[in-house]
Amino acid sequence: MGAPVERTRIRRLPDKAVREREALHGVLDAGMVAHVAFVDDDQPYAIPVAYGRDGDTVLFHGSTGSRLFRLLAGGAPCCLSVTLLDGLILARSAFEASMRYRSAMVLGRCTVIEDQVAALRTISEHLVPGRWDVVRPPSRKELAATLVLALPLDEWSLKVSDGWPETSPEDEGWSPPTGVIPIRTVLDDFVEGEA
Amino acid sequence: MGAPVERTRIRRLPDKAVREREALHGVLDAGMVAHVAFVDDDQPYAIPVAYGRDGDTVLFHGSTGSRLFRLLAGGAPCCLSVTLLDGLILARSAFEASMRYRSAMVLGRCTVIEDQVAALRTISEHLVPGRWDVVRPPSRKELAATLVLALPLDEWSLKVSDGWPETSPEDEGWSPPTGVIPIRTVLDDFVEGEA
Repeated sequence: MGAPVERTRIRRLPDKAVREREALHGVLDAGMVAHVAFVDDDQPYAIPVAYGRDGDTVLFHGSTGSRLFRLLAGGAPCCLSVTLLDGLILARSAFEASMRYRSAMVLGRCTVIEDQVAALRTISEHLVPGRWDVVRPPSRKELAATLVLALPLDEWSLKVSDGWPETSPEDEGWSPPTGVIPIRTVLDDFVEGEA
Repeated sequence: MGAPVERTRIRRLPDKAVREREALHGVLDAGMVAHVAFVDDDQPYAIPVAYGRDGDTVLFHGSTGSRLFRLLAGGAPCCLSVTLLDGLILARSAFEASMRYRSAMVLGRCTVIEDQVAALRTISEHLVPGRWDVVRPPSRKELAATLVLALPLDEWSLKVSDGWPETSPEDEGWSPPTGVIPIRTVLDDFVEGEA
């Protein structure tokens, strides 16, 4: 575990590192969009995906026609990050201005999930609990067009910033209001409609 | 522009591609966190950063002690993505379930900004307008510990999903409620306090 642990060791602001797996699960369960980083022809990309979690595995899906998904299905190294922004921290100095956030990062290689339906259900239930049981299940043709990938929670880091603004002796004489502007993601009432 | 245009051509769901630069600016201006993808030792990473926009340049900053920032300052290829999640689209079928989103992706290499103060002000004003003028400006020592990077909006894509659920002949006989759960990011009232 030498190299893996090293790769996800938090070097910047190490006091914000969280090691509890339950906290990692909590952040993944609270998010709705992950950014997956991969490399194609020496160019890195970060692409948003919907996802779900099954125990110690992150599941996400895409089209068999997608370059991203074909590369990842082939076992290319990737990074899946979920960042929840919880607030803006307003300090006395410009330098100490920062954010409240919870940021999870998972490194590894994906495997292709054969039991697509169970995995797709997990992703669906993560986003809209109860929905899977009332919609038309995927057809054979739809499943053939879908790649479902699994990334294990083996090599990961979690960074949580949930504090208050710091002040320093240099700030003496500066007294703007200091504190936090909390940020929330709100799901509004369902709006019925169809294309 | 052959290769660059090809690299950011939207292949999946090309009808969602938006080419207007004003729309790109709008998404960047509405976001607060970007994910920057880069490669270190064959491993891709996607790391969240605060950012701002100055005309056709995205600005972001970090510590001179950060591996990410040193790599990017050295001109490593990167990808900066900003994704705004606007809603969950509930269709009759599992397959057509999707999201409303606005997703911007910028490819390129960063340059190091010498005029740090103006750039830091731009980032600060993007997040908390008016704040810069009331806080203690960065000291020489603080600036020496800060790298400010600029990524030009030369090679980019924007994908916007803002529609309603699609239905297909296969869905006949399935009639769950269909529509959209809108999602918003809300900034709550300022809470005063200090560490």
